[in-house]
Amino acid sequence: MCYYNKLDRHAKKLSRLGHLNAICGWDQAAMMPNGGAQARSEAMAELAVISHELATADYLEDWFKQAEAEDLTPEQRVSLDALKRQWMMQNILPADLVEQQSLAGSQCEHAWRTQRKQNDWEGFKANLKPVVELARKEASIRAQATGLSRYDALLDIYEPGMTSAVLDRIFAEVKSWLPQLIQQVEAKQATEIVLPLSTPFVIEQQQALSLEAMKLLGFDFEHGRLDISTHPFCGGVPTDVRITTRYDESDFTSALMGVIHETGHARYEQGLPQQWRDLPVGEARSMGIHESQSLFCEMQLARSSLFSHLLSPMIQKAFNSTDASLSAENLRLINTRVKPGFIRVDADEVTYPAHVILRYEIERDLIEGKIEVDDIPTIWDQKMTQYLGISTQGNFTDGCMQDIHWTDGSFGYFPSYTLGAMYAAQFMATINQQMDVELLVGQGNLTPIFEWLQTHIWNKGSTLSTDKLVEQATGETLNPEYFKQHLMKRYLNN
Amino acid sequence: MCYYNKLDRHAKKLSRLGHLNAICGWDQAAMMPNGGAQARSEAMAELAVISHELATADYLEDWFKQAEAEDLTPEQRVSLDALKRQWMMQNILPADLVEQQSLAGSQCEHAWRTQRKQNDWEGFKANLKPVVELARKEASIRAQATGLSRYDALLDIYEPGMTSAVLDRIFAEVKSWLPQLIQQVEAKQATEIVLPLSTPFVIEQQQALSLEAMKLLGFDFEHGRLDISTHPFCGGVPTDVRITTRYDESDFTSALMGVIHETGHARYEQGLPQQWRDLPVGEARSMGIHESQSLFCEMQLARSSLFSHLLSPMIQKAFNSTDASLSAENLRLINTRVKPGFIRVDADEVTYPAHVILRYEIERDLIEGKIEVDDIPTIWDQKMTQYLGISTQGNFTDGCMQDIHWTDGSFGYFPSYTLGAMYAAQFMATINQQMDVELLVGQGNLTPIFEWLQTHIWNKGSTLSTDKLVEQATGETLNPEYFKQHLMKRYLNN
Repeated sequence: MCYYNKLDRHAKKLSRLGHLNAICGWDQAAMMPNGGAQARSEAMAELAVISHELATADYLEDWFKQAEAEDLTPEQRVSLDALKRQWMMQNILPADLVEQQSLAGSQCEHAWRTQRKQNDWEGFKANLKPVVELARKEASIRAQATGLSRYDALLDIYEPGMTSAVLDRIFAEVKSWLPQLIQQVEAKQATEIVLPLSTPFVIEQQQALSLEAMKLLGFDFEHGRLDISTHPFCGGVPTDVRITTRYDESDFTSALMGVIHETGHARYEQGLPQQWRDLPVGEARSMGIHESQSLFCEMQLARSSLFSHLLSPMIQKAFNSTDASLSAENLRLINTRVKPGFIRVDADEVTYPAHVILRYEIERDLIEGKIEVDDIPTIWDQKMTQYLGISTQGNFTDGCMQDIHWTDGSFGYFPSYTLGAMYAAQFMATINQQMDVELLVGQGNLTPIFEWLQTHIWNKGSTLSTDKLVEQATGETLNPEYFKQHLMKRYLNN
Repeated sequence: MCYYNKLDRHAKKLSRLGHLNAICGWDQAAMMPNGGAQARSEAMAELAVISHELATADYLEDWFKQAEAEDLTPEQRVSLDALKRQWMMQNILPADLVEQQSLAGSQCEHAWRTQRKQNDWEGFKANLKPVVELARKEASIRAQATGLSRYDALLDIYEPGMTSAVLDRIFAEVKSWLPQLIQQVEAKQATEIVLPLSTPFVIEQQQALSLEAMKLLGFDFEHGRLDISTHPFCGGVPTDVRITTRYDESDFTSALMGVIHETGHARYEQGLPQQWRDLPVGEARSMGIHESQSLFCEMQLARSSLFSHLLSPMIQKAFNSTDASLSAENLRLINTRVKPGFIRVDADEVTYPAHVILRYEIERDLIEGKIEVDDIPTIWDQKMTQYLGISTQGNFTDGCMQDIHWTDGSFGYFPSYTLGAMYAAQFMATINQQMDVELLVGQGNLTPIFEWLQTHIWNKGSTLSTDKLVEQATGETLNPEYFKQHLMKRYLNN
């Protein structure tokens, strides 16, 4: 078992360097003064070089060959498979391609920060083209190595096992009912009266409220903390999860829902199997499953009617106010407001899938060579009009230039958001069959619900494929029907 | 110039890994929740192994040989010397000795935390003996390599160029006047009436006051920050200095003076030469010079009569109180109170040297083999009685078991504290000759004073030997007379 142990030790070493990177990255975003930036990025780059050298060391190929011939337990075999996948993902690309991608991506992303504000599609296009070309090269190499199609080979980075064939089928399904649903919900909500919030909301009070909400959702403060950063995220390591938020004095709900969302990510990390700590098999299953946990907290729980009754008194106490806008019913109305808009990150639960499907369809065809960068704005506008009834013609800023993902070549990520929403709905449907969720939420007793997630999702790490994980947890693989039912019930009461 | 450049690059790599270690270490002390401890220490140990491998790589010996034959500028020659010293210091000890020391030190320190509380000298002694034996071995190896005596070879780690011959002479001088001075000051202060502070002092207000004081002392918040930790320290890196403190609701002066002390360390780090960043030649000169900067801020500036007039209104404003105990005069009395006591870290400026000299004399004789561990308590008691007039007989907790330094084998460090106090006094004496310090402090305009330190101390890094640094700055090498004059003037008004 010598080589298996060597690989195990090697992976833990890499993971521990990743630990330092995660903490220094968190510090960079949440603590570091501006003047520390240059030296910090140099220090982190040095660590990246060392990690890369370790991850791509020559001897690993032999170690894997030797380890596979060793007498391993079934558990070790699963871990070895995960180790091998991680190693292949990091070694499949030639070093010069990785370097070109890094350069083109940095350049495109950096310029995009200015170009987006200036609605400068022509300027952006010139930078995006080489990024797409390099991503196509990457996709070809990955496709050859995995036997997948080019786009699927990129999708596989974020969603192992997922294919565009499955996504095409699922998203076609969604497209068959979503535009109509959006119209119905809009019509229904047109008669609702939502009371505006009486601002401002003091930052310290919002912070106290955020911590209360995290406590309610079972965040383990012995293994994590909450801080402030410009772009909220969930970072750190499973034994010390760092979530961040930013506070808006004119609207406490954005930070509160953001914190609840990140708490979902955090609980997944905190609940990962300790016996596999620092190994790939002990990591989160996929980006979609990760997102399912954040959306479970935010969408399935926090934006529900019952949960508003838990939040309302907490909010009233936090801001020492009994204003009618803070009633459970008004909070529910605020938290379930649906309105088609240009911006994905501002989208509500109902219109969000339209944003994702649009991007998926474009990036899939882009990587497969069916469309070119020049075609993006027209297709974007057509699909926005078709799915959400709004046009982005000539508005690149709020159209195809709004996201960071493509600027640095992250094609294949977008589907994870909607897969997450669907998995979350499916998990909740199963939980609903096994316990009285309404009663538990009404009592503020979320423990049994999280225990279900701990047992069926968190504790599994990456020991099962996504399909097996979902099947063992819910009795079937991904079924988008649960998501549809969830939206119908919440937004149309049927 | 190829090998010089290789060494330069190699040192920067090591320094950048040190950067990550410093930030993760700071995080560990100031931010990390308890549950993150185990994984963090594993991650940091991994980094330590990588750093150690780099620092002791086989090829370095050849690189130094080659580099020394290269055509270098005088500046590069100085940097190369510093690189070589650092390399030798890290490579001089055989790996098995380092490992034995690490084990014995951890064991002794860990047990000491309990044994000290239990006044358990017998238990502690059993652990300290192997630590001393290993330190003697280390001293012999270092002595052989450097041509220094055994104790001097350890002293040289912290105070390059300093010897026990010099310390013996200087400390003999101090001993000739210190005991009498202490008695005189005690007699003088016996008639003073010091108003007690009206507690409590709210933590948030103390924190605001600390930040005010740091601002007054020119701390650069673009390159550093203040946080809370159990054991206050100055960490981070020169471009991002992290100082910490802890707040005591019953006494704001401890945190305030602590923050001012650490700010002195921080300004030195922030002021180090940027062109030598990440290289040994760009680091602080010695522990004694480092301490001189913290004591310059705390002792030369903050505890002076004039500075009390700056602090008093800040303090009154911070706590929104005009209580008579917060008057400039009462603050001066509090900040210059002298009282012989058992504990070094609680000692005032006047009695502090006695604590250091006692430790120096014991550790010198211990390393040179003139006394044994068994002899320590008796000698400690004799010297405490002789220097401070108080006996520690049978009281190991507050006697020879009070410090952490010896528990992990850090022999040779103690003199730095008093050397720092002396250098600080000497620097202030020179500054006093070049500008009207009283006037400047009276105006709250400390800039010219800090500019002097920037030019003469901070900006020099380690480009000069300590003697040369002090001589170029003040016209002479270390002269303890300035320290004596400072104490006489402040505490006896003559």
